Amino acid sequence: MNIEIDLTQNLKSKPNADQIAFGTIFTDHMFVMDYSTEKGWYDPRIVPYQPIALDPAAMIFHYGQTIFEGLKAYTTPDDRILLFRPEKNFRRLNLSADRMSIPAIDEQFALAGLQKLIEVEKEWVPKAVGNSLYIRPFIIGTEPNLSLAPSKTYQFIIILSPVGSYYKDGIQPIKIHVEYEYTRAVRGGTGFAKTAGNYAAAYKAQEKATTEGYSQVLWLDGIEKKYIEEVGSMNVFFKINGEVITPELNGSILEGITRMSIIELLKGWGITVIERRISLEELYNAANCGELEEAFGTGTAAVISPIGELNWGNRNIVINKSEIGSLSQKLYDTLTGIQTGKLEDLNGWTVEVK
Amino acid sequence: MNIEIDLTQNLKSKPNADQIAFGTIFTDHMFVMDYSTEKGWYDPRIVPYQPIALDPAAMIFHYGQTIFEGLKAYTTPDDRILLFRPEKNFRRLNLSADRMSIPAIDEQFALAGLQKLIEVEKEWVPKAVGNSLYIRPFIIGTEPNLSLAPSKTYQFIIILSPVGSYYKDGIQPIKIHVEYEYTRAVRGGTGFAKTAGNYAAAYKAQEKATTEGYSQVLWLDGIEKKYIEEVGSMNVFFKINGEVITPELNGSILEGITRMSIIELLKGWGITVIERRISLEELYNAANCGELEEAFGTGTAAVISPIGELNWGNRNIVINKSEIGSLSQKLYDTLTGIQTGKLEDLNGWTVEVK
Repeated sequence: MNIEIDLTQNLKSKPNADQIAFGTIFTDHMFVMDYSTEKGWYDPRIVPYQPIALDPAAMIFHYGQTIFEGLKAYTTPDDRILLFRPEKNFRRLNLSADRMSIPAIDEQFALAGLQKLIEVEKEWVPKAVGNSLYIRPFIIGTEPNLSLAPSKTYQFIIILSPVGSYYKDGIQPIKIHVEYEYTRAVRGGTGFAKTAGNYAAAYKAQEKATTEGYSQVLWLDGIEKKYIEEVGSMNVFFKINGEVITPELNGSILEGITRMSIIELLKGWGITVIERRISLEELYNAANCGELEEAFGTGTAAVISPIGELNWGNRNIVINKSEIGSLSQKLYDTLTGIQTGKLEDLNGWTVEVK
Repeated sequence: MNIEIDLTQNLKSKPNADQIAFGTIFTDHMFVMDYSTEKGWYDPRIVPYQPIALDPAAMIFHYGQTIFEGLKAYTTPDDRILLFRPEKNFRRLNLSADRMSIPAIDEQFALAGLQKLIEVEKEWVPKAVGNSLYIRPFIIGTEPNLSLAPSKTYQFIIILSPVGSYYKDGIQPIKIHVEYEYTRAVRGGTGFAKTAGNYAAAYKAQEKATTEGYSQVLWLDGIEKKYIEEVGSMNVFFKINGEVITPELNGSILEGITRMSIIELLKGWGITVIERRISLEELYNAANCGELEEAFGTGTAAVISPIGELNWGNRNIVINKSEIGSLSQKLYDTLTGIQTGKLEDLNGWTVEVK
């Protein structure tokens, strides 16, 4: 398929990414592709960034058939533009699509579309250290029909947003609140998919945590409320007695691409990484014997987010004196180094936008 | 607040509701009201039915902050227009709103807006027996922002759709497939809320059931996979040995307005109704001893949907020879009789649109 390009006549002024709030400023163009059951995916195009006009009965408004991805483009010191494992994002988009009964996209074509879009918008990729261009591919069901059935039409859209450094004042370990009342996801549900419903459903718990002075929620499994699943919208890792443990993928946990990369990095360094169930009780006991050495969340936004404190009910754990641990710091430096082209990409993870 | 009315110059032709598919034809106008954190809900208006234009970063597309309701308007034999317990729908809309961190609406004002809209569209309320005007109020988060936080702006919209009789060839008992793999909802999740994410998440299971020759899915609890929760998107009732049992509201079951009305009707008739946990095993045993007399789903669309057959794995139950039971029939006749003004409304459930 040929990608039609319709350039805008009115270029926006480019703000300093560090001075804007995350995800509020968008570039001049967007990538759009339509789907119908008769034609499949068709009419891929790059058009001026513009509102989407949908019938009020469009299924996205009623039954939640929508999925998304999030990744970043970085400027290297020698002025190249790099994407980090973008093929993994489009792979996961298709896994999410399958769960939400949304038709699959051609992953390679979607990546080609993204590359073309970034080429058009290359002036928007921030150059300042720590800044990047946030990329948001998403698919929505658009058929105007109130029947409970998968949509017969869809739009696949990619929008771009310049974003500032996540850590403007250096990495600050966060305080985490264990959530008992609300559940993020359960076996047989949609937890492993990046779909809208998972996110708004988490706001009540986040609100509670914020009110109580914590910056994120630690999610437990929906069945026994014993096992650790995620932190906020991040995967989570614990360094206990020299080994690194992260909850195993069980259908209710998102398979993070940062998670995947961290596991590969650690293994490459000869550090034991175990993907298995880990209970809050085990964590508490490890902390009590002084074996809980580091804890951190991982995700596209922060890359590594060290956990300084963990609270549930009357119990409180302070981890590594609420300072970033040396392994966390090394992982952060290595991963961001590879992403931004400052370190050699020995794993072949980056893809250059020409 | 005053409701501004902007009438269309191009009225659509009105189809025969019985000849159109559910939820595909909409009336000439819609009700719209906006929300911002500064102004609260403002600018209520009735405008020509038209597309909604949203920024591609609007939160509804990404994080699923949306809720809806479904109810119907009926024409009585003496040509009045009745709504059935509409205040309960707006009450539930606010319960859903709270779960999804959406600001509450003024329930009485929303009902007044709906009545005004139906007054404008009164020619669209079908007169043929069994037909009705389906009403879909919904709220969407509209702020263009990719941050994970509740939207600061919303739209509340009501659209109307003439719909045909659910049972064109008389009531047919349905065959139900018990779902083990997928989960609809779990304690601490969003199951009790009418929010988009719950619905698309159910398509995979429905697809499986359809493929295997069943018309709906029976959902079990997400924790033990033992207890009955809902059937498709309906509540469910079982008549066992003269008593009626329905799963108790536990946070993962939607509090249906038809469910509520059926419980009240049955109690009024002196029939024992018990809201409690009921396991599949108990149901199977009751069927084996010949004590499972009737089973039916309840909801706005079908009112009563008798269950003729229930299947899980190698087990199969045929209920009441796959015929509608006398209690199911009486409930259907009474409830539809009250809704359409053919029977006296002793409970004060109907609201006339003047």
